[in-house]
Amino acid sequence: MQDNVIRMAHGNGGILMQKLIQTYFMEAFHNPFLAIAEDQARLPLSYFQTGEKLAFSTDSFVIDPIFFPGGNIGKLAICGTANDIAVSGAIPQFFSCGFILEEGFPLSDLENIIQSMADCAKQAGIQIVTGDTKVVPKGAADKMFINTSGIGVIPRGLNWGMDQIAVGDHILVSGTLGDHGATILNLRENLGIQTDLCSDCAVLSPLIERLRPLAGIKTLRDATRGGVNAVLHEFCFSSQKGMQIYQDKLPIRPEVRGICELLGLEPLNFANEGKLVMIVSADKTAEILTALRSHPLGKNAAHIGEVTAESKVSLIGSFGQSRLLDLPTNEPLPRIC
Amino acid sequence: MQDNVIRMAHGNGGILMQKLIQTYFMEAFHNPFLAIAEDQARLPLSYFQTGEKLAFSTDSFVIDPIFFPGGNIGKLAICGTANDIAVSGAIPQFFSCGFILEEGFPLSDLENIIQSMADCAKQAGIQIVTGDTKVVPKGAADKMFINTSGIGVIPRGLNWGMDQIAVGDHILVSGTLGDHGATILNLRENLGIQTDLCSDCAVLSPLIERLRPLAGIKTLRDATRGGVNAVLHEFCFSSQKGMQIYQDKLPIRPEVRGICELLGLEPLNFANEGKLVMIVSADKTAEILTALRSHPLGKNAAHIGEVTAESKVSLIGSFGQSRLLDLPTNEPLPRIC
Repeated sequence: MQDNVIRMAHGNGGILMQKLIQTYFMEAFHNPFLAIAEDQARLPLSYFQTGEKLAFSTDSFVIDPIFFPGGNIGKLAICGTANDIAVSGAIPQFFSCGFILEEGFPLSDLENIIQSMADCAKQAGIQIVTGDTKVVPKGAADKMFINTSGIGVIPRGLNWGMDQIAVGDHILVSGTLGDHGATILNLRENLGIQTDLCSDCAVLSPLIERLRPLAGIKTLRDATRGGVNAVLHEFCFSSQKGMQIYQDKLPIRPEVRGICELLGLEPLNFANEGKLVMIVSADKTAEILTALRSHPLGKNAAHIGEVTAESKVSLIGSFGQSRLLDLPTNEPLPRIC
Repeated sequence: MQDNVIRMAHGNGGILMQKLIQTYFMEAFHNPFLAIAEDQARLPLSYFQTGEKLAFSTDSFVIDPIFFPGGNIGKLAICGTANDIAVSGAIPQFFSCGFILEEGFPLSDLENIIQSMADCAKQAGIQIVTGDTKVVPKGAADKMFINTSGIGVIPRGLNWGMDQIAVGDHILVSGTLGDHGATILNLRENLGIQTDLCSDCAVLSPLIERLRPLAGIKTLRDATRGGVNAVLHEFCFSSQKGMQIYQDKLPIRPEVRGICELLGLEPLNFANEGKLVMIVSADKTAEILTALRSHPLGKNAAHIGEVTAESKVSLIGSFGQSRLLDLPTNEPLPRIC
């Protein structure tokens, strides 16, 4: 057995596992909570007392390939969970991570991935405070899966949520749609499209920070798996109101359109990993768009539609024709995140 | 494609996935935090203000087979993370769960597993407040993996931890050792040993509750993967003190001894899923053992050794001979938890 790959003994609770944890994880993620090396992180509640509520979220990442233009599975695992927390208005603070590794996985790849996680977390002010590693025999898992769970505090008085959605509200997005999904598909399906396109994988907290002081924000979501379409359906289902968007207002890169046309897929179903879908009061749209566009992560923000009375999700085409947007019943994009 | 198995579309963010979540997860795990169906749970901080610190832990479960005498992967996923939190003295309260499902996985098995999780969590006073589901193509994961992460509060004034360990302290265990590991091996290796042996998989909070008011408790661990041996090595490494235990004092069932002898394995390396290893002040041993034995989960509690000055883990045999206990360098027990 080679020395530079994951071995079953890396998951046995013994010496090799201790070494793996010390050399890779403890080193890259170093912080006082992780360093106590108990079975759980111990977080002083004084860290949280400025807010009223904790936001707590989890996500497992099974993306294939694990390295892609714009990121890797590790960076994605930080961004994905950070964004699920941040859309509540909370500041993501403390993370756990759980690795499932396939026997034979290259240690150098693991190291790169862990370093990406550490860098991304540090930049976002997130501390990885507890973790777990499992190794499964070759063939029992494809390369690696990562779970991250995280905690943040929702500031007092902030009450963003789907229960705030009202008829006449506007629908905004924070930038171009489908970049992540199109990047992964182009790579995986060997479409051969030469492009600078890369995943939009990013922690959205700095952008959301600019929104926190503003009035008129009803609810935020990051549009990942299932794309903008899935988010609009969740909004529709939860609020029992309609979501109407306009084809001509959607910010979609030409390369993403090209990949969609080639594969016969709808870009609104494509995953994003650094894009917000927002419902806002119509009278605050201009102000909120200005705030979004003042940050690099929101520079292509756009107003794409509005909330209507009749509970359905519809797309208005270039010539004014309306069609219902259904949720896909098959899975055109497996292992996209 | 059959209707009664997991399909790729169960993981696409669309209709089938919504249906899966509503029908199985929301139903079984129902609570107000989960019911808001946002991307994160929102937990009022008032839930936490009686304590000083949050305990936060994560664990991924990859056990094979997923059903076994005494439990299944779902029950295990609740017990394992609950125990990692509870050994800090905290009461486990809020859990996340992340599922990675293989295409073709039987829905009836998923339902059973989710129901076990719900039952086990309910009994332990744990609420599952947020979750995530991924589906991977057939062959990319073996059946199912579950990650659970959890939060609890460590009561004010409680300060259990490895930094409390002192020379002369006693080492206790809360019951028979190796039952979980032996059960899984007997099943998986078709050893053909007819036995009533079953996994000790249990949430230990009710037992730990009896310990919380007592003086003299230095630190607690649940001895899972790597067994009592791995825990003693962690204690030894962290405290730089010795851990000396006695062969004749170890509570090990005859069936577990039999399975170990048959396979040439050391029962101290076998996983437990409902057993504590504790370091306590020598003068409080009797009182603590009485408290442990007053609960069904601790009825076979035993004093198995003591903390010594020289940093090593050793086992004293029946004739007084001492041998060093090393950590295994291979992995005799893959996918045990």
